[in-house]
Amino acid sequence: MSSLLEQEIYSQPEVIARLLDQETRHIEEIVNKLPPFDYVLIAARGSSDHAATYAKYAWPIMAGYPIALAAPSLHTLYHKAPRMNGALVVGISQSGQSPDIVAVLEEGKRQGRPTIAITNDGTSPLAAAADHVVELHAERERSVAATKTYTAQLAAMMIFAAALSGEKQRLAEIQRLPDAMAQTLEGAATLTQRTERYRYMEECVVIGRGYNYATAFELGLKLKELTYVMASSYSSADFRHGPIATIDSGMPVFLVAPQGATYADMLELAKDLKKREAELLVISEEQQILDLATTQLSLPAAIPEWLNPITAILPGQVFALHLTLAKGLNPDVPRGLNKVTLTL
Amino acid sequence: MSSLLEQEIYSQPEVIARLLDQETRHIEEIVNKLPPFDYVLIAARGSSDHAATYAKYAWPIMAGYPIALAAPSLHTLYHKAPRMNGALVVGISQSGQSPDIVAVLEEGKRQGRPTIAITNDGTSPLAAAADHVVELHAERERSVAATKTYTAQLAAMMIFAAALSGEKQRLAEIQRLPDAMAQTLEGAATLTQRTERYRYMEECVVIGRGYNYATAFELGLKLKELTYVMASSYSSADFRHGPIATIDSGMPVFLVAPQGATYADMLELAKDLKKREAELLVISEEQQILDLATTQLSLPAAIPEWLNPITAILPGQVFALHLTLAKGLNPDVPRGLNKVTLTL
Repeated sequence: MSSLLEQEIYSQPEVIARLLDQETRHIEEIVNKLPPFDYVLIAARGSSDHAATYAKYAWPIMAGYPIALAAPSLHTLYHKAPRMNGALVVGISQSGQSPDIVAVLEEGKRQGRPTIAITNDGTSPLAAAADHVVELHAERERSVAATKTYTAQLAAMMIFAAALSGEKQRLAEIQRLPDAMAQTLEGAATLTQRTERYRYMEECVVIGRGYNYATAFELGLKLKELTYVMASSYSSADFRHGPIATIDSGMPVFLVAPQGATYADMLELAKDLKKREAELLVISEEQQILDLATTQLSLPAAIPEWLNPITAILPGQVFALHLTLAKGLNPDVPRGLNKVTLTL
Repeated sequence: MSSLLEQEIYSQPEVIARLLDQETRHIEEIVNKLPPFDYVLIAARGSSDHAATYAKYAWPIMAGYPIALAAPSLHTLYHKAPRMNGALVVGISQSGQSPDIVAVLEEGKRQGRPTIAITNDGTSPLAAAADHVVELHAERERSVAATKTYTAQLAAMMIFAAALSGEKQRLAEIQRLPDAMAQTLEGAATLTQRTERYRYMEECVVIGRGYNYATAFELGLKLKELTYVMASSYSSADFRHGPIATIDSGMPVFLVAPQGATYADMLELAKDLKKREAELLVISEEQQILDLATTQLSLPAAIPEWLNPITAILPGQVFALHLTLAKGLNPDVPRGLNKVTLTL
């Protein structure tokens, strides 16, 4: 019997289709009702924080709003909530349970700011604290490592980006996601055997930039949670400001490098890393950069750049799943983790 | 002859004394002249980004302003600068050269927002782009790994926090820093031999939270740059949301855990990590948590919590220096790095 994780990974096209169906109009309505705001304050942890990181690029690029990622411990440990004048306050949490994330939304409400909760549980404390609730409709996620709720959160952030941009064709573009995701998962079937090569990998680096900065962090987290590999995630720019020194011969480096504004920079980095004899694992649809890789995690025909983080993470999820199996580990219950993490 | 890195590490009390002497009044004047703003947008990379991360806690806690860390690639790769209504725009860069950081300040100015540059070079492009320039007065930093310019940037952010808070005693508290730093460096002399134990360490985890979230990232970066150890940095809260699965018997974990609002949380994590048989290296002045450590990086008598990141990083710098020497590596010129990194 296949693992819950595998079932959840392959359910994603359907989950996203349902979310698009049930929430697109709702998100448009929320956006139409929002009072004016200057910037967006987002509170999230773990995979949800990576969905927030996607918004940190997509919302300014598509709609001009700058994003501040909240520091929840200001509320829970220091009891010094910042003034939120000018802010739209957004909380993202699969479970909607973590007290630190709830605290940020409650404070936003107390200060009279507009608040939005994005969660898989419409009856959660996070939902109760918000003016507007966007549900993920992902059904219960039973594997500890988040997959379908992560891509559902991404899709929600994409619908918001489209609605905030006021450009109608953006909403049409999003409708292509379920097909593109199904095609990508089909293409990733080749990775099943390929992960054997990495059975004894102990550490690796994961690099992405711009829209796919989030993908680098999400893939790094999957590798850590599931395979216990010490994965370090960076933007290509931050990487050059120091951590590139850790690269020597044979170091595995994942590059999240689909087409788009960051591609030229990623290609240049790939060439530099080849000179340092790193072993490249490349996620892209571009043959030029795939040809530099020892392991190709190919993406099918390109979708618009602002949407590609939702396909780019899929071969990474499949890779992490099969590496977990190759190591004889349980993909559904990583050691020392619970599904709901309550942090203050 | 001692390395440039060692000389620069030990020059820090003097550097900070000079900065306090030459910039405290200047920063107060800048703060008095600022027009109203709702939040602060900070652009920085590498160690400078860690000084910005400190401000992400200190400025809201001390003065109520939320901080957004900029995504410079919005400006340089996507050419979609966000609207900066309500923002104070701050750029931090040792060299003041990196085009992506300069681009954020130039855009702030173009949009008529107040701008501040914090840099060790008052003639740099970053300084030229700003309304107000705070120089670090750290003299030229010749070692590639930043030490004195990092603590000088921290001190500048501390003076701003104090000035923005409007509480006079804060500025008096800062005057204690040079003495506290000298005392801490003296206490760190015991680490010279102790680093031998870690000669063959290949990976490690570094955890801090709140004010010392920045310290965890800065210590992680020093270890990566200088010793090529794959160090992963986290807040204790983010760590529990997944990466804790990577911990098994013998994994070295640095805990940045001085007294203050985050201490109880860090102590609880230390106990949990002991159960998982991690090897703890603890930075603290509290005997209770030091007693859980295999290696104690002791801090002398406590200074106010909001200032302790500037002492907490010092034993980490000394540790990284001596581990570099124990490995027979050159502490002044890590492989593959240049002093000035120009990223777009």
